[in-house]
Amino acid sequence: MDDLDEAVALYSERLGMPVEHRETVAEQGVEAVLLGVGVSHVELLRPLSPDTAVGKFLERNGPGLHHVAYGTDDIESALDSVRAAGLQLIDESPRTGIRGSRVAFVHPRSTGGVLTELVQAVEGH
Amino acid sequence: MDDLDEAVALYSERLGMPVEHRETVAEQGVEAVLLGVGVSHVELLRPLSPDTAVGKFLERNGPGLHHVAYGTDDIESALDSVRAAGLQLIDESPRTGIRGSRVAFVHPRSTGGVLTELVQAVEGH
Repeated sequence: MDDLDEAVALYSERLGMPVEHRETVAEQGVEAVLLGVGVSHVELLRPLSPDTAVGKFLERNGPGLHHVAYGTDDIESALDSVRAAGLQLIDESPRTGIRGSRVAFVHPRSTGGVLTELVQAVEGH
Repeated sequence: MDDLDEAVALYSERLGMPVEHRETVAEQGVEAVLLGVGVSHVELLRPLSPDTAVGKFLERNGPGLHHVAYGTDDIESALDSVRAAGLQLIDESPRTGIRGSRVAFVHPRSTGGVLTELVQAVEGH
């Protein structure tokens, strides 16, 4: 699905997941929409340009599952654990994610091909 | 990651997700391991043969994210909703999934390239 609004309509109107937030996250090169599903979220992404990470992913794979994110209350400690476990990090220290969260990605090379994100939400989210 | 046990070791020992269940699900052509993460699960899959759906996925894409599953208390009603929303089903009626669950897949063609599963767990899971 090439169009973000079309994807939002699918997930919100046809699948019934409420839109919680929409934001352009310049640091990640995406426009992102968060929809609620239980205590989790579906995040729909549109690349801001073809030369972003998500733009290149779309070029290579077409639309589909991009990454999995795990919440943590303490991203520094989570990064230490992941580092100690010998996994390769994309972000050695946290960057800014959606809704002011602090995020860091683990390289899919060390997680069986699954791009993995750690997220520490700001309080209240 | 080509080896299921290696993937289980990564997620359980190095990432700290407890193994909850391991089962060969003949109807889906996989050996599957469920690990707990919050109220959700990571499911690691090994195809029983190359000509299964997961075997073909691995052949085409290599290891990575295969599908997303959403829990429901009433899979018949969820299937009716998805059908009414005009989405294309792979399973018109539920099949048997892991731990005796009832499952049905929605075709990625109607969900922006994301293979989507509905799961009604048996009570207690």
